[in-house]
Amino acid sequence: MQIAVVLFDRFTALDAVGPYETLGRLPDAELVFVAERRGPVRSDTGTLALVADKTFADVPHPDIVIVPGGPGQTPQMENETLLAWLRAADATSTWTTSVCTGSLLLAAAGLLKGRRATSHWLALDFLERFGAEPTGERVVVEGKYVTAAGVSSGIDMGLTLLGRIAGDEHAQAVQLLTEYDPQPPYDAGSPQKAPAHLVEEFRSKSRFILT
Amino acid sequence: MQIAVVLFDRFTALDAVGPYETLGRLPDAELVFVAERRGPVRSDTGTLALVADKTFADVPHPDIVIVPGGPGQTPQMENETLLAWLRAADATSTWTTSVCTGSLLLAAAGLLKGRRATSHWLALDFLERFGAEPTGERVVVEGKYVTAAGVSSGIDMGLTLLGRIAGDEHAQAVQLLTEYDPQPPYDAGSPQKAPAHLVEEFRSKSRFILT
Repeated sequence: MQIAVVLFDRFTALDAVGPYETLGRLPDAELVFVAERRGPVRSDTGTLALVADKTFADVPHPDIVIVPGGPGQTPQMENETLLAWLRAADATSTWTTSVCTGSLLLAAAGLLKGRRATSHWLALDFLERFGAEPTGERVVVEGKYVTAAGVSSGIDMGLTLLGRIAGDEHAQAVQLLTEYDPQPPYDAGSPQKAPAHLVEEFRSKSRFILT
Repeated sequence: MQIAVVLFDRFTALDAVGPYETLGRLPDAELVFVAERRGPVRSDTGTLALVADKTFADVPHPDIVIVPGGPGQTPQMENETLLAWLRAADATSTWTTSVCTGSLLLAAAGLLKGRRATSHWLALDFLERFGAEPTGERVVVEGKYVTAAGVSSGIDMGLTLLGRIAGDEHAQAVQLLTEYDPQPPYDAGSPQKAPAHLVEEFRSKSRFILT
């Protein structure tokens, strides 16, 4: 089973590495990082580069497509090379998935029309503009389309999909080996739980940035 | 504040990317991935490479040292270049930290003698051989030494340290932006919670591999 993780300039690293570390541990998985060009691709902070080992053209028919998000997603919304690859890959994929604002790229490619989907909490409104039905859930499985909320939610998505594909026990084994027994020191991981002034601060900043 | 994340062949990617994505969002942080040589360093699966932008020699005095683990940690236990760098960096660091079996490298460098520390659940016994006092906690803060349990625990460690350095509110903001509101589909993330036969299976395998 071939799994393609998409990279583009200024992606968010954990968006990509969460599913890689979980779903990539499927038995017999051939996981490959793909981008427009081979070579290092810088993340949003500028301090980390992940290597794309293959180009989109090298991997036309992955079984699973994983699209991360990040601030670099915005210019990709008009990158016809990426969008055309997503459409073509989706035509034969078993699962088409995203983490964070990666769902906006699936939506821009026309793949989420009329479908329930999620995204980073700051980006949910944008999903609607592309005809998707945004939900605030952490992982949304809608047929073969699996979308996850912000950044760290890709770990939950990876385990969810691992369970569907390889069975609960295999997913539990990967959870145990990655010791995913979360104990965050705060309970501020969603807009419902975080201090209201922080939520408001980010909402007003993002309106400025994203619209 | 300079943060050095150590890379070596066959490290576990999420060990490094969890702290990067959280602690790396310190205000004014200069985070840098370091290794013996500049360039791509392959993770344990072989399907992902992260780029080391600097050599150990380029970064002699980081304020924060982060050491990931992974299967590649074993040969590093005798890598005097790495161990000497860890000792020297630790001599002037504000925080010396690890995720997963990275704590075995700190221990091999002699930095955890008589200190409480943690590691991947399969590696806790090994910590003791190097004079550390293993605990099963997810994140252990012992003076300036902060160790985290397996793989995904680096996210919890990153947020914990972020709170100590930049204050609770900044850490909560990063938790909110990374949407770290974990909802794993299973409750199997620790040896206490996972099905007993999986725990036993991995314990017997690891005895074979690690001893």
